[in-house]
Amino acid sequence: MTRTAIYPGTFDPVTYGHLDIIDRASKIYDTVYVAVAESKEKSPLFSVQERVDMLTESLKGYENITVEGFDSLVVDYAARRSSKVVIRGLRMISDFEYEFQMALTNRKLKPEIETIFMMPKESYSYLSSKLIKEVARLGADISDFVPKNVEKKLKKKMKV
Amino acid sequence: MTRTAIYPGTFDPVTYGHLDIIDRASKIYDTVYVAVAESKEKSPLFSVQERVDMLTESLKGYENITVEGFDSLVVDYAARRSSKVVIRGLRMISDFEYEFQMALTNRKLKPEIETIFMMPKESYSYLSSKLIKEVARLGADISDFVPKNVEKKLKKKMKV
Amino acid sequence: MTRTAIYPGTFDPVTYGHLDIIDRASKIYDTVYVAVAESKEKSPLFSVQERVDMLTESLKGYENITVEGFDSLVVDYAARRSSKVVIRGLRMISDFEYEFQMALTNRKLKPEIETIFMMPKESYSYLSSKLIKEVARLGADISDFVPKNVEKKLKKKMKV
Amino acid sequence: MTRTAIYPGTFDPVTYGHLDIIDRASKIYDTVYVAVAESKEKSPLFSVQERVDMLTESLKGYENITVEGFDSLVVDYAARRSSKVVIRGLRMISDFEYEFQMALTNRKLKPEIETIFMMPKESYSYLSSKLIKEVARLGADISDFVPKNVEKKLKKKMKV
Amino acid sequence: MTRTAIYPGTFDPVTYGHLDIIDRASKIYDTVYVAVAESKEKSPLFSVQERVDMLTESLKGYENITVEGFDSLVVDYAARRSSKVVIRGLRMISDFEYEFQMALTNRKLKPEIETIFMMPKESYSYLSSKLIKEVARLGADISDFVPKNVEKKLKKKMKV
Amino acid sequence: MTRTAIYPGTFDPVTYGHLDIIDRASKIYDTVYVAVAESKEKSPLFSVQERVDMLTESLKGYENITVEGFDSLVVDYAARRSSKVVIRGLRMISDFEYEFQMALTNRKLKPEIETIFMMPKESYSYLSSKLIKEVARLGADISDFVPKNVEKKLKKKMKV
Repeated sequence: MTRTAIYPGTFDPVTYGHLDIIDRASKIYDTVYVAVAESKEKSPLFSVQERVDMLTESLKGYENITVEGFDSLVVDYAARRSSKVVIRGLRMISDFEYEFQMALTNRKLKPEIETIFMMPKESYSYLSSKLIKEVARLGADISDFVPKNVEKKLKKKMKV
Repeated sequence: MTRTAIYPGTFDPVTYGHLDIIDRASKIYDTVYVAVAESKEKSPLFSVQERVDMLTESLKGYENITVEGFDSLVVDYAARRSSKVVIRGLRMISDFEYEFQMALTNRKLKPEIETIFMMPKESYSYLSSKLIKEVARLGADISDFVPKNVEKKLKKKMKV
Repeated sequence: MTRTAIYPGTFDPVTYGHLDIIDRASKIYDTVYVAVAESKEKSPLFSVQERVDMLTESLKGYENITVEGFDSLVVDYAARRSSKVVIRGLRMISDFEYEFQMALTNRKLKPEIETIFMMPKESYSYLSSKLIKEVARLGADISDFVPKNVEKKLKKKMKV
Repeated sequence: MTRTAIYPGTFDPVTYGHLDIIDRASKIYDTVYVAVAESKEKSPLFSVQERVDMLTESLKGYENITVEGFDSLVVDYAARRSSKVVIRGLRMISDFEYEFQMALTNRKLKPEIETIFMMPKESYSYLSSKLIKEVARLGADISDFVPKNVEKKLKKKMKV
Repeated sequence: MTRTAIYPGTFDPVTYGHLDIIDRASKIYDTVYVAVAESKEKSPLFSVQERVDMLTESLKGYENITVEGFDSLVVDYAARRSSKVVIRGLRMISDFEYEFQMALTNRKLKPEIETIFMMPKESYSYLSSKLIKEVARLGADISDFVPKNVEKKLKKKMKV
Repeated sequence: MTRTAIYPGTFDPVTYGHLDIIDRASKIYDTVYVAVAESKEKSPLFSVQERVDMLTESLKGYENITVEGFDSLVVDYAARRSSKVVIRGLRMISDFEYEFQMALTNRKLKPEIETIFMMPKESYSYLSSKLIKEVARLGADISDFVPKNVEKKLKKKMKV
C-alpha cells in the first residue's frame, strides 16, 4: 500500500545524520522525496538551490530518491506528491518536543497524512547542522560530520 | 483567602490553549488579571494594545477577568494588583524548565508571591503561538487553533 | 515495497491509545501483526491468551490486522513474519528513552529491521495501562479509557 | 471563592520538601487537607496511621491544616471534602510526566476538579522519600532531610 | 592534586559502556577504585563476588584500577579510600535526574566529596544491564554488549 | 596525573552559579583556566575584556585560577593549555542535551580531551545569565544572583 514518503527539512547543510535517515527510509519505501524547505525565517547559510544540489550530489546512486525544494506547508507538499507519510528523524528530547508539536499541528491541518519518526545511527545522534557550522567557522576538521562535497562548499562559504 | 490571581504572558497572539487556562483559572479564583507583557525583546508581531484587544474580545462574557498590558517585573505587577498568585500554563518539558527558572527567580525577588502551574486540555497541549504564526504565514487554515477574531487579525497582519 | 509491519507490546490491557496506533498503522501498511508479548517478568494481570482475545474482539472489522502472542525477541518475531518494520507508539519523554534503548538494541541484534515511531491522538497521550488498572481497582469509571469488552473483563478480574 | 485544597500523597515518610509545599499551600488556601493515601500497592514502610501521625506532629501550629488517611480515588476524596483543587509538588521532569498523566486521568474522571502544581524551595528539590530510606538504611545522618520526629521513627523502624 | 577517584555501581553485569567510562577515568586519574555495591534491595542476578570477578577479569592490564565490593554509603566508601571524587556515567535524561538526586544527597552528607559526570562513547549510550539481561533471557547474541567472559557467565546463569 | 582543567564559557555576565562551579573545580584540580569565549555569534552584552575583568575581580584570592579570553575551538584552547579536561556545569535537561552534543563533537575533534560535568549548588541551579539580564533590565534587585562588582557594571551598561 504506502509506497511513497517525504522527508522534509532545512538541510543547511546536510549531515551524515540526515543521510543515514534517508538511507533507512529508502529501504522501507518505494519512493522517497527529500524536500528542502526554503525556511527563510531561519536565514539559512545556503540558498535552497545550493542545499538541493549538495543533497543531490550526496545521494547519487539511489534510484528511488528525488530531491527538490518547496515553500509551502509540509502537508500540502505531501499531498502534491501523493504521499501519506512524512518522515522525521528523532535524536534528542528537544527534537522530540518540537517534532511532536509540528506533527500534531500537521495532523490537524491534514488528518490523512501520518508522521513517522526514525532514529539515526547512534554515532550520528549528536550531529547538528548548527553545531557543525559553529565549529567549521572556527576552523575545525568536519570530515567526520558531512560528506566531502559539503565540506568543500561549507569551507568556501565561510572562507576558512 | 486568596481571591486574586494574575496570568501573565506575551499572547502573540492568544490561542485556544491560553483561553482554556484562563477559563480554568476563572473557576478557582474570584478575580483573574490577564497581564499582557510588552516583551519588546521578543519583537512581537502584534503591539501590546492589539494583543490586549484580541484577548478582551475573546473573553467577553467573563465577569471576573480583567485584561491589561504591563511593562515591569511580573512580581511587581502582581504586587500592584494585590495578588499573591501567578498562574502559568505547563504543556511540555521545555516549558517546565524555563518556567521553573522564571518562577524561582521571581520567588527570590518577592518570596511572598507564589507561582502555580495549570495544565491546558490535552488537545490544546501542542498549540504554540510561534508555530501558529509559522503555518499561518504559509496559508494554513488556523481556525482550530485561535478564535475567529484572532484568525482575521492574524491574516490581515500577514497579508495571506 | 514494505507491506508488513509488526506492532509488539504487552497490552495488559489494550487501551484506546493502542487501538488508535493500530488504526493508523493499518492505513499505511498492507498487513499489521499485533504481537502480544508474554512478558512474564512484568507479571501481567491478564494471561497472554486473554490479552490476545481482548485485542481480537476490539479489532473486529479490520481485514489487514492479525493478533497473536509471542515469546521471543521482537526482531526474531519480525523476521518470522517477514516484516522489516517494528511500530512503536511514543507518548512521553520516558517512553522516548526506553524505546530508543530498545530500538538501538534491536538494531544491533538485526540491522535489517527498522523501528518506526508513531504518535497517538493527543487526547489519548496520557493513557497508560498501569494507571488504568490503578484507578479501576479504586472503582473508577474507565469507559473513556478502554473499550466496553475490556472494561467488563477488567472489572471481573478485579472484582470491583 | 476557592477556599479549600487537598494535597494527596503517600508520605512514606514526610520530608522537608513535602512540608515546604504544605506551608506554601497553607498561605494561599483557607483550608488544606493533607490526604495520606493507603497506597498498598507500593508496600509502604510505615502504616497509614503512622504516616498520618508523623505529618500531624510535624504540622503542629498550623490552624488551617487537617491531616487524614484515605483509600479511594483522589477525585472522590476531593469531592467529599468539597474541594475543587488538588495540589501536587513538581520537582523534576519524571515527576512532571507521571503527574500529568495522573492529573489528566483525574480530569477525565471528574472534570470540575482542577490539579495545580507548586514548586518546593530549590534546596529541597532533590529530596525523595525513597532515596532517604535508602541512605537511612546505610546509616546516614538524615537530619537535613526530615524533621526530628520522623528521623527517630525511621531509625527505629530500620533498627539502624 | 586530585589523584584518586571512585566509580561506584551495581554492575549486574558490567557492560562495554561501564568499561568505556572506566577506561576514560583511568586516563585522567592516578588511581580509580571501581566499587561494586551490594545493592541487596535490587536483588541482583550475580553475587557481589561474581560481579567483582567479572570486572577484575575484564580490566586485566590496567595498572591503576582496583575493583572491590562495598556495602556502605558511597560517600563513606570514598572517604575510606581518601578520594574526593565520585565518577558517574551519564547516558540519558532519566540517568540525569536520578544521578542528580543522588549526587545532591551525597553532597549534603559529605560536602567535601564532589561527583563528576562522564559520557560513554555514543555507540554505548543505549547499553543497559537490565535490557541486556532481558534479551539474553530470550536467547539474543549479546557479544556486542558485554565482554566474552561476562557473556559466558550470563548464559550459564540463565541456562540459555 | 591530571592537574589542569579548563572551564570555558561566555560568562555574559558571570553569576554565582559559575563561581560555585569554579570554586569546586579549584578544589579538585591543581590549576583551572577559566576561558572566556568571544562568542560573537551570540552578540554578548559585555566585551570579552569586560567579561574577563569581571571574572578576575570576582575570583581574587584564588591562587590556582587563571582567567583569559579565547577565540578558537575549545579543544584547541585546551591543547594549548596542556589540559586534558574540559569542565562544564550541568543544571538542567536542556543544558544536558546541548552539552552532550558539544562534548561529543569535541571528542570527535580531539579524542584525548575529556569533558566532565559538575553540578552547581542546588540553590544556584536556576541562575541563568540571560534571565538575569532580562530582570535587571526591568529594574530588579539582582544582588542574590551576581557579585557586587558585576551588579554595578550590569546596571551601568543597562542604565537602569
